[in-house]
Amino acid sequence: MSTHEARLADLREQLKRQQFDGFVVPICDEHMSEYIGDYAQRLEWLTGFGGSAGTAVVLADRAAIFVDGRYTIQVRDQVDGRLYEYVGIAQQSVADWLGQHAPEGGKIGYDAWLHTRDWVQQASARLAKRSAALVATTANPVDAVWHDQPERPAASMNPHPIAYSGRESADKRAAIGRWLTDEGLDAAVITALDSVAWVFNVRGGDITHTPVTLSYGVVRADGTADLYVAPEKVSDALRAHLGNQVALHDYDAFETGLDALGGKAVAVDPERAVAAIFSRLEAAGARIVARRDPSVLPRAIKNDTEIGGQRAAQSRDGAAVSKFLHWLSIAGPAGGETELSAAAQLLAFREETGLLVDTSFDTISGASSNGAICHYRVSEETNLPIVMDSLYLVDSGGQYLDGTTDITRTIAIGTPTAEMKRRFTQVLKGHIALATIRFPHGTTGGQLDALARQFLWADGVDYAHGTGHGVGSFLAVHEGPQRIAAFGGMGEPLRPGMICSNEPGYYKAGEFGIRIENLVLVEEIEIAGAEQPMLGFETLTFAPIDRNAIEPALLSPHELAWMNSYHAKVLDVVGPQLHGEPLKWLQAACAPIG
Amino acid sequence: MSTHEARLADLREQLKRQQFDGFVVPICDEHMSEYIGDYAQRLEWLTGFGGSAGTAVVLADRAAIFVDGRYTIQVRDQVDGRLYEYVGIAQQSVADWLGQHAPEGGKIGYDAWLHTRDWVQQASARLAKRSAALVATTANPVDAVWHDQPERPAASMNPHPIAYSGRESADKRAAIGRWLTDEGLDAAVITALDSVAWVFNVRGGDITHTPVTLSYGVVRADGTADLYVAPEKVSDALRAHLGNQVALHDYDAFETGLDALGGKAVAVDPERAVAAIFSRLEAAGARIVARRDPSVLPRAIKNDTEIGGQRAAQSRDGAAVSKFLHWLSIAGPAGGETELSAAAQLLAFREETGLLVDTSFDTISGASSNGAICHYRVSEETNLPIVMDSLYLVDSGGQYLDGTTDITRTIAIGTPTAEMKRRFTQVLKGHIALATIRFPHGTTGGQLDALARQFLWADGVDYAHGTGHGVGSFLAVHEGPQRIAAFGGMGEPLRPGMICSNEPGYYKAGEFGIRIENLVLVEEIEIAGAEQPMLGFETLTFAPIDRNAIEPALLSPHELAWMNSYHAKVLDVVGPQLHGEPLKWLQAACAPIG
Repeated sequence: MSTHEARLADLREQLKRQQFDGFVVPICDEHMSEYIGDYAQRLEWLTGFGGSAGTAVVLADRAAIFVDGRYTIQVRDQVDGRLYEYVGIAQQSVADWLGQHAPEGGKIGYDAWLHTRDWVQQASARLAKRSAALVATTANPVDAVWHDQPERPAASMNPHPIAYSGRESADKRAAIGRWLTDEGLDAAVITALDSVAWVFNVRGGDITHTPVTLSYGVVRADGTADLYVAPEKVSDALRAHLGNQVALHDYDAFETGLDALGGKAVAVDPERAVAAIFSRLEAAGARIVARRDPSVLPRAIKNDTEIGGQRAAQSRDGAAVSKFLHWLSIAGPAGGETELSAAAQLLAFREETGLLVDTSFDTISGASSNGAICHYRVSEETNLPIVMDSLYLVDSGGQYLDGTTDITRTIAIGTPTAEMKRRFTQVLKGHIALATIRFPHGTTGGQLDALARQFLWADGVDYAHGTGHGVGSFLAVHEGPQRIAAFGGMGEPLRPGMICSNEPGYYKAGEFGIRIENLVLVEEIEIAGAEQPMLGFETLTFAPIDRNAIEPALLSPHELAWMNSYHAKVLDVVGPQLHGEPLKWLQAACAPIG
Repeated sequence: MSTHEARLADLREQLKRQQFDGFVVPICDEHMSEYIGDYAQRLEWLTGFGGSAGTAVVLADRAAIFVDGRYTIQVRDQVDGRLYEYVGIAQQSVADWLGQHAPEGGKIGYDAWLHTRDWVQQASARLAKRSAALVATTANPVDAVWHDQPERPAASMNPHPIAYSGRESADKRAAIGRWLTDEGLDAAVITALDSVAWVFNVRGGDITHTPVTLSYGVVRADGTADLYVAPEKVSDALRAHLGNQVALHDYDAFETGLDALGGKAVAVDPERAVAAIFSRLEAAGARIVARRDPSVLPRAIKNDTEIGGQRAAQSRDGAAVSKFLHWLSIAGPAGGETELSAAAQLLAFREETGLLVDTSFDTISGASSNGAICHYRVSEETNLPIVMDSLYLVDSGGQYLDGTTDITRTIAIGTPTAEMKRRFTQVLKGHIALATIRFPHGTTGGQLDALARQFLWADGVDYAHGTGHGVGSFLAVHEGPQRIAAFGGMGEPLRPGMICSNEPGYYKAGEFGIRIENLVLVEEIEIAGAEQPMLGFETLTFAPIDRNAIEPALLSPHELAWMNSYHAKVLDVVGPQLHGEPLKWLQAACAPIG
């Protein structure tokens, strides 16, 4: 295996051959996916950086790697500082750095299939100040020197039955067609993998944790569509499922397929479609209209079938998690367990259900100080033992055909300190405030976010992440457009049928981390004497919240009542699925407090 | 006095003479002021409509008046439906209506000194679809037929001493100059009346309730400035106060004065400057750069002198309001008082201070069902008696040289119903939640708004206004840029030194209204063990909150503690200013609850 130093040298040679003075390497794929396939992990191959977000810029005589605050430490561990200078993305953007360091009159390359049009425009503007240009490469120069680059994944694309989707693809496409007609448009280009999966009621296995297939869709005003997917992934059953209103094309034919939209008015989502798609459509003479992908909002609003499926998945998943918590209640204090062994045990309980397709993301299994790292991913190198008198945080989820789950529990092993209990209880109070809030139609998650933080704020502490994200239905565990967060949570009102996480936390660097996460469903709430229709959240996730970590004196009567009623429901839902010792443990774990 | 029918006919004749097919009449002045002088009340003169927001459009054969939801009823009372059709602005905008009803190829007039450039562009686009044009009139045709139109106000412009402003105008102008230099700009046009007043440390009397002078400013990158104001308003003392870095010009010379900015890069605020200013600058060859008025943010962040002045004004005003509440505690149950007589009595107590310059807005004195009208203005026609077993709401404020106040109290006359007490207590709980919240730097008022609504929301009720607005320092009682509201409250973080109102409410149409309003100051809060600097609110307003309207059983221990501690502070601040019966009453009104 070549060293990162050799790889960087190879890339610089290649850039010289392609006559570029520099090149930008993001973590991205052709669909702007949050999780990307191994074939697209160019930044990791080049630099060794294993985080989920970052960018490198390679010039002839210097190179830099840009990461956000989550990865400040990790990047120093994984990336050689003699090869790459470290830049905090909040301190200087890639575009600004290029504007400062690119050679006068230089030609900086980028892969137009891995960047948004907005980024290209911004970076071009910065480079223009140095008479330098940002130029799309015809082939990615990293691929040219990455000799053992993995192949694109080749998992089959499968029909997602109506029993799970609850709505025919033809009906979804017809609705998009009506929207196009109303907007005076001819077609919509669908580029996000979960959007394609939702529109066509298909699922796949190309991306770890997210059951989607590398594919593109084009939906026309009459509801007919093109679906671009590698032919070896298509079976006769899928062909029959798609029907004769969907024309199948090779994935690699997508770029030339766009030429057929010349002269048409085409909706393209500037946040979800890469720059190359805009360029190709422009060259073909299409009239591009920037619009949010029309499947985003209807996908977020789950139908009754999806909600029913989510409930079934949550019941099953809650039982698996409860079995794990029972196991931990014995194995934790007994000693000898680690973050890796605990994660493996949790996976085993989920696999025991016989219905687990995949975990919905890499399990965050964080003992003691590792629990304070929000986006921690355990490895052999970082693996900590689970020890007495500490907190253990586990954030995990399952992909089931009927629903995607996401749950975090924080468990006191032995006796927690007073500080741990105070913080745990403040996090719990915030969780309850959000779980029980009632709000009018039109309210955004951004308006509600502070409810979950107020008790921590009172002590002058906070958590540096949003309080809630949308969740897909056997799809991406992070799904827009709604968010419960100050940033990104202001635009989109919460609507009945949306599923969000409710996950306040607290992280004391080097000591411990706390997060309590359930999924919640937005629904209409009947209130006697109400003067207007009101919405609220129904909690969907069922597993005990650790009573040993709670300081009951800090809970109000209302909060105590919620806690006890929640645990009663956990016992109702999960109890019938357990027997013997685990059931006895569950009964104790769900006994009323106070 | 001519009838509204005759006035409309006169205007149509005039439009014919000026060769226009229609004309748009907004409520606005040349400074986009919230409150405007009598000379600018063209809509009221033409139609009889006395609200604070609305627009009429007059065509040859039809006319319409556009108002928002607050004025749906009032417009029907005041404006003749045979002359004007009523249009809800949320249902159809003026631009859309023009696009639908303007004659094909017609020429619709507007006064470019009374509209924003954005409005002109929108309306022009709609009219273009009918080949009609929006054309600026050289003189306002309403003025041509309004024979007894009041003169422009002629109050003197006065120096606002450093003892109140706390910061020299030269220093403020130098800061604006540095900002211009940083932005690569030559000058900023200052058009908002309170901005001019703040920048030059001057105050006036041209606008009711807001101590400002009709005037414009231009500040240059070197800190020198032009000030446009009618010469008869300028004294030698003012001249000396302004100094030799400020060139004085006649108010009427402003338009031609803009020509001197030809070839310069000029900052103009598109929300605060009218379309005519943009047109003139464009014609003069200036490079216009749209930027928020650079005085807006520094004006909102009060300095120590202004904060000290505000405290003094609040102490004095709180004593006047407390005397009024004592008076009401006797006069209310005794019977015979009305909304008008109570408002007069409150004014008398404020005038007794000897320092009242003006009220800070028209006092909202609402008994029983009139209390449910959020923007109620009492008149002889609407004047209700204050009766037993009802709620009386009074929202009022004073303009003092050292500060502007704004306070709302709701008082139970006799015995309130259980519903009144429940709602009053829910409003109080929301008020306390906001008063006591701690939050990190960067938090916007939009993130906090829901804290004040949560207890009402739990019952399926709400209030249809924001929770808080900024307040000037002997300036406008409504001042941006910060707001505590879902709409308009998301953009601007709350910063130490900002003053906001905290005014949740509840309104039951036809029955009663409740609002509890104090002003609060954003400030750094020391919290033991805090991990980051935190902000919070210090309540500045001191007058009892009616204990008889509170249902103590609904208050948490934390809320009871706030209530009692607030009343203790009221007694501390106001007590020394009262004697005899009023003091005895205050002591009882501030006695601990629970």
